[in-house]
Amino acid sequence: MKPCHLLPCLNPSFSHRWFFGRHPSVRVRSFSAIKPQMTSEYYTFGPYKISSKEVFYTTPLSFAFVNLRPVLPGHVLVCPRREVKRFVDLTAEETNDLWLAAKKIGGQLEIFHKASSLTFTIQDGPDAGQTVPHVHVHILPRKAKDFKNNDEIYDAIDEKGKELKQKLNLDQERKDRSLDEMTQEADDYRKLFSIPDSLFL
Amino acid sequence: MKPCHLLPCLNPSFSHRWFFGRHPSVRVRSFSAIKPQMTSEYYTFGPYKISSKEVFYTTPLSFAFVNLRPVLPGHVLVCPRREVKRFVDLTAEETNDLWLAAKKIGGQLEIFHKASSLTFTIQDGPDAGQTVPHVHVHILPRKAKDFKNNDEIYDAIDEKGKELKQKLNLDQERKDRSLDEMTQEADDYRKLFSIPDSLFL
Repeated sequence: MKPCHLLPCLNPSFSHRWFFGRHPSVRVRSFSAIKPQMTSEYYTFGPYKISSKEVFYTTPLSFAFVNLRPVLPGHVLVCPRREVKRFVDLTAEETNDLWLAAKKIGGQLEIFHKASSLTFTIQDGPDAGQTVPHVHVHILPRKAKDFKNNDEIYDAIDEKGKELKQKLNLDQERKDRSLDEMTQEADDYRKLFSIPDSLFL
Repeated sequence: MKPCHLLPCLNPSFSHRWFFGRHPSVRVRSFSAIKPQMTSEYYTFGPYKISSKEVFYTTPLSFAFVNLRPVLPGHVLVCPRREVKRFVDLTAEETNDLWLAAKKIGGQLEIFHKASSLTFTIQDGPDAGQTVPHVHVHILPRKAKDFKNNDEIYDAIDEKGKELKQKLNLDQERKDRSLDEMTQEADDYRKLFSIPDSLFL
């Protein structure tokens, strides 16, 4: 995979507008989020494979997908495409790309789910609760009193993480939410980030 | 305050290398972290004032400071300089600057505190536990079994947040950690980010 920072454009907010691998001199602007299956059938998430049907937003360096066991409606994950275990090891371009994506996704999902706040968390390393060794931002739309105590949401993230690790172990079939259900959710979210054809340059 | 994005340099990782307000054509490279008092005596954190003695790292758009009541050694906060309540309202430049700073600070403090992992969290809005209405990233160096259950750290953040809100209410004197203690910690951290004069261009 050719890293974006080899391209001449160093402004990450601009590079979002290009299909991965397309040279900026080609003035066809779009979002790969519209056709994620064009990038690959599966996305790598640590040792696991994430179907492109579950992926609802992609940028040149990041991708976002729905959760096997969300702890709240709209609980999604955003990852760098490159398999990097620790946040400190991301390049500046990957860091910017990841958090601009997370900001945009959080803003849209908060509205979509009629929420009032957001939790953003990176559990960066095993002793911070990281269960999948691939940097990922948890985004959770929050509502008043969605958890009795605010911090219970982190209990839930951790429990789901442990379960996820067990459930996704090797090639065992994932039986939690159905792929149909997750595909439908990803389809709904994908629409939030699509751009009308009329806006193509 | 003149926003950095008005400057011609759009690459945030590069803009870190300039004193705020200095035009990039002036090739004197440095970190304002070395002399934070040059920027202002106090930094604004929502309705509160943070003494520059507590601030150990600054960039053109962000600043980082030690905690009045850290829940673990090295628990610090990183903020945009501009008083913005919600993460979605940061500009791309502010977002990039904030997270590049957070990544760098986390990496250094993990080593400094001989920790093995990091927790990064934004409680973005009151229903996510935000107690001070100014975007801030919590960074916490983590060690094995520092909390009996990993998620207890978030209980601690929330409790400290509530206490902070009470303690920092209006102009009441802050009696928790002494300013001397916090100044010493900030001095220690500031050294982590200083650059030898020989590296100036």
